[in-house]
Amino acid sequence: MTHLTKFALPAALVLLPTLASAQEADTTPLNEDIGFIFTTFMFLVSGFLVFFMAAGFAMLEAGLVRGKNVTMQLTKNMALFSLASIFYYVLGYNLMYPGDGWSIDGLLGAFSITSLEPVGLEGAEPDLTYASVGSDFFFQLMFCAATASIVSGALAERIKLWPFLAFTIVLTAVIYPIQASWKWGGGFLDAAGFQDFAGSTVVHSVGGWAALVGAIILGPRIGKYAKDGRVTPFPGSNLALATLGTFILWLGWFGFNGGSQLYMDTAGNVADISRIFSNTNTAAAAGAVAALILTQLMYNKPDLTMILNGALAGLVSITAEPLAPSLIEATLIGAVGGVIVVFTVPLLDKLKIDDVVGAIPVHLFAGIWGTIAVAFTNSDANILTQLYAIVVVGVFVSAASAVVWLLLKAIMGLRVDEEAEINGLDTTELGMEAYPEFTRS
Amino acid sequence: MTHLTKFALPAALVLLPTLASAQEADTTPLNEDIGFIFTTFMFLVSGFLVFFMAAGFAMLEAGLVRGKNVTMQLTKNMALFSLASIFYYVLGYNLMYPGDGWSIDGLLGAFSITSLEPVGLEGAEPDLTYASVGSDFFFQLMFCAATASIVSGALAERIKLWPFLAFTIVLTAVIYPIQASWKWGGGFLDAAGFQDFAGSTVVHSVGGWAALVGAIILGPRIGKYAKDGRVTPFPGSNLALATLGTFILWLGWFGFNGGSQLYMDTAGNVADISRIFSNTNTAAAAGAVAALILTQLMYNKPDLTMILNGALAGLVSITAEPLAPSLIEATLIGAVGGVIVVFTVPLLDKLKIDDVVGAIPVHLFAGIWGTIAVAFTNSDANILTQLYAIVVVGVFVSAASAVVWLLLKAIMGLRVDEEAEINGLDTTELGMEAYPEFTRS
Amino acid sequence: MTHLTKFALPAALVLLPTLASAQEADTTPLNEDIGFIFTTFMFLVSGFLVFFMAAGFAMLEAGLVRGKNVTMQLTKNMALFSLASIFYYVLGYNLMYPGDGWSIDGLLGAFSITSLEPVGLEGAEPDLTYASVGSDFFFQLMFCAATASIVSGALAERIKLWPFLAFTIVLTAVIYPIQASWKWGGGFLDAAGFQDFAGSTVVHSVGGWAALVGAIILGPRIGKYAKDGRVTPFPGSNLALATLGTFILWLGWFGFNGGSQLYMDTAGNVADISRIFSNTNTAAAAGAVAALILTQLMYNKPDLTMILNGALAGLVSITAEPLAPSLIEATLIGAVGGVIVVFTVPLLDKLKIDDVVGAIPVHLFAGIWGTIAVAFTNSDANILTQLYAIVVVGVFVSAASAVVWLLLKAIMGLRVDEEAEINGLDTTELGMEAYPEFTRS
Repeated sequence: MTHLTKFALPAALVLLPTLASAQEADTTPLNEDIGFIFTTFMFLVSGFLVFFMAAGFAMLEAGLVRGKNVTMQLTKNMALFSLASIFYYVLGYNLMYPGDGWSIDGLLGAFSITSLEPVGLEGAEPDLTYASVGSDFFFQLMFCAATASIVSGALAERIKLWPFLAFTIVLTAVIYPIQASWKWGGGFLDAAGFQDFAGSTVVHSVGGWAALVGAIILGPRIGKYAKDGRVTPFPGSNLALATLGTFILWLGWFGFNGGSQLYMDTAGNVADISRIFSNTNTAAAAGAVAALILTQLMYNKPDLTMILNGALAGLVSITAEPLAPSLIEATLIGAVGGVIVVFTVPLLDKLKIDDVVGAIPVHLFAGIWGTIAVAFTNSDANILTQLYAIVVVGVFVSAASAVVWLLLKAIMGLRVDEEAEINGLDTTELGMEAYPEFTRS
Repeated sequence: MTHLTKFALPAALVLLPTLASAQEADTTPLNEDIGFIFTTFMFLVSGFLVFFMAAGFAMLEAGLVRGKNVTMQLTKNMALFSLASIFYYVLGYNLMYPGDGWSIDGLLGAFSITSLEPVGLEGAEPDLTYASVGSDFFFQLMFCAATASIVSGALAERIKLWPFLAFTIVLTAVIYPIQASWKWGGGFLDAAGFQDFAGSTVVHSVGGWAALVGAIILGPRIGKYAKDGRVTPFPGSNLALATLGTFILWLGWFGFNGGSQLYMDTAGNVADISRIFSNTNTAAAAGAVAALILTQLMYNKPDLTMILNGALAGLVSITAEPLAPSLIEATLIGAVGGVIVVFTVPLLDKLKIDDVVGAIPVHLFAGIWGTIAVAFTNSDANILTQLYAIVVVGVFVSAASAVVWLLLKAIMGLRVDEEAEINGLDTTELGMEAYPEFTRS
Repeated sequence: MTHLTKFALPAALVLLPTLASAQEADTTPLNEDIGFIFTTFMFLVSGFLVFFMAAGFAMLEAGLVRGKNVTMQLTKNMALFSLASIFYYVLGYNLMYPGDGWSIDGLLGAFSITSLEPVGLEGAEPDLTYASVGSDFFFQLMFCAATASIVSGALAERIKLWPFLAFTIVLTAVIYPIQASWKWGGGFLDAAGFQDFAGSTVVHSVGGWAALVGAIILGPRIGKYAKDGRVTPFPGSNLALATLGTFILWLGWFGFNGGSQLYMDTAGNVADISRIFSNTNTAAAAGAVAALILTQLMYNKPDLTMILNGALAGLVSITAEPLAPSLIEATLIGAVGGVIVVFTVPLLDKLKIDDVVGAIPVHLFAGIWGTIAVAFTNSDANILTQLYAIVVVGVFVSAASAVVWLLLKAIMGLRVDEEAEINGLDTTELGMEAYPEFTRS
């Protein structure tokens, strides 16, 4: 990082490898480079926003579990993101984007390790009409990791660390990339005309299905559902953290949806990204307001955790089509997401499916809604095709997840033992409390 | 979000609506598009930074209230931002930026719902010398929401949720946009030569006046001021959160002030944004250091909450003119902001005006100082015009706020009942504690 | 910030100083401006990411100290960043980047206050092949401040506030800039061929050496090391906060390493920044995974604080050369960083060097490793030159730090008294608890 500010020493410049190729006489970008720089930088900015969603999920989940399981939830989130970061380059990325290297055409991508373009693009023939491979990899990785974060929230407070991490590896290396290739890699769902701009189905429902199947196989937390049908609420330990997590996720979603425009090389594209930012924000707001009003009406008291999940459901709902809607349409799409959350959280409880943070309503149910809603605002979408894709992805991910969960259950066992669950995973499994001085023990 | 990386399948490209218009043969941006892309992207990046200030305010306020009111404070912050997001597009934006559609020339803007440019700008004739409407809307919305966040901190721990939210709607849909149109929409204060680069008056003092009037009408918290004049400190429940909130606000301020340059399409403009970033950071630092030294000298112990508010006051102070000052001048401007906070927080207490988080000293008093200070560094500013605008905005916002607060008081009542206030708003009004396992009850 | 959206009032435009120079007839950037705008904006974006690392360090450290010292740790972090922001422009920046104004050629930079380019670049002759001075100053300042943050973590829970801040001033105004000038200012280490892309040595080891010398002179916390060699663990008070801090630091590191490319004006440069983002993320992930696996194997329980420090060590390790490695090489480089942390944290304890947050293993030991590892992937690097620079910087910073610490010890005393340390610095030194309602007292 040598640089010499205003008064450069010309002799020293010779030492700088990063300058060598680029800085000869003039640094005015070549005309054909400008769009490439714009789009690549847009991916990097969007990518770091989506990266930060990992922190958002971690805070949301750590805030919604009980104090005795916080360290475990933090550990899972840090570990799942790290494992996704490695296995996505080892396997996932080329499975998802095989280009013309499909193993089975339109169905199963390529098996190879990701390699980035050479330093300074030297010797490369980059596609200057798009973006650098590194920026694309970076951006796409963050979507893959988000999928795993969704699962970790639903299964909190009773799943063992290592089986969860083993599932994460399979999900991020194989399950997510394969189904994503069907749409975003140009596979058979894409050919069928399926529309999913930023992943209500491809990302959110995938996390949701994996979580749903996992929650069923794993069973509810001890004491959650009484035999007489009563549901015991287990209040989250830190709602400030959960709120922070929601705000961080909301922030990250601008990158999630905005970056999915995939190009920022024309006035039209950057104006589209602006539409996407505005619609994304509006849908989140509408989801929160819907949950605020609805919980006031239904329970006579607004419920903060519902409001948080309402905002997130609004975001998931707009994710399949954040570009086409007007602000008013975005408001409606997001508001329906918020309504879905308020009605389906108790529904899951009735079914004794124990989803600790509400991930299944937010990511699966609102994701399905969002995918259907595309047909209302985007004339290229067909509602039957949308339903077809929802079902195809749902069946594949549920079946694959079930196989993996059941295998892991057979091999390692999924749940901590009863005593560990009651005493909390932090002291029993990790020997480390998150708040050793705060919690009443 | 289909894309096909290096080895594109040409057939699949046909399916992609987002590519259709933009990606024909070549993606090199047209020359006249480049400035538009730069400025639009700058607004989007600045806008997400200012968005994140909503999280900063939420954390600052949640950290400075007592544990029994944290859920309520979080709920208010999530709800106010969401409501602002909706009402600003429904009413606020075109009231603030009527273009040539003023209802009363230079005084009252246009009444219409915001509509963004069409997808891909198709059929639009965008002003390529500026930025996309969507990016401008997104950026400006965040300023409007910040105004409401300021109010929520001052009135914490005793105001009812719904009257507060009703006030938020009027503030963000009507009061803020109208006075903002006078300067930033090209109205009469702009014509008079008033200078307010990023809103020491237009944003911060507006929040401050609304908070001041609200705090007077609402009255202090029970037990805060004894009859003999003694003031009981109510320590914040979580200073780590308050510090995080301050850092997030500081971060967001780079977008707040930097984006207010409004153009990033020339070397001169981007260099100006760099000056603004540097001055903004310097003023914040100077405000913090001033409060650090002053509390050490006055109380013999540095006071963290004063240091946090000192940094924020430094930021507010530089907001009216972050471009013209040198780094040394920015240091002085920010330091005076910090000094103002240290002296006026106890002053408000003497007047028995109960401002829970110090929002009035930070946003109103430092905002006035910053607006006056413009005259010292920007030769286009006239101190009398600055004072005139401060008074005009102050009178309008105070009067309008008073009317709304008093109406709400008459209709719904503003304060929770005494028992609810003593037991905390979280259990009584919301039935949900923020830290159910931590707080000593 | 006046702007007039779509329907501009031409008359009002005349009032706008920020538009005057830039917006005459056409805003299409001149060709030679485009690279300048790209690179400058890249510095601003990278700079705000690195700024946010100040929050990351604050949260990490506040989470890892005990509840009774949290307010002090927050105060130190807020104050150190603020002081660095001032002293770096007063002295540091031109000491570090003297251009051709060296006081002693290649060894001691220039003594002068930083001045930014004039508003609108008017009358300036900017180097359009690079970036604006303001953006460069902003970016570099954040590196300087990071160095001081490293020290504050290691010496927590027993050092007095003011001597610590006095050291911070000397470190950020003098020690850091002088040694940084040797490499990044084009001084003698740069001339010798030393390679340190983003500062494994220039930033991280410097903080590490200053912390190591400080920790030795200061001595361990009371009760940490028993005479019989047993080490008493002092668990961190808030691991959620520590995890958040780690995620924020990880986020900031994309700016830290990515921005150190120093140019974003060609396709090659932006592709390189993409490589850097990808490698930086991969190394962090590998460090975390290495610590996860290793603590499972060694202690039979994964250790969250080790995983967090493993991620940070992975980041420090890749910092000296984030561009040249492949993803696999980045994985290995980062993983070794994680391994180093797991083995050297207990080593320091054996030596009775009390480093509260593990800053010395993370920033010094992994920093040395990263600096050596450059030679494995960058053919311009020579391992002997790398070692030479590590030693030169280490000797200089250690000696200078020792002098300053010992002087401060003689003049002001470094440690709080025993009673204050046992009762906690928050009540005794500051009279303010961070969590007054939570901690069991």
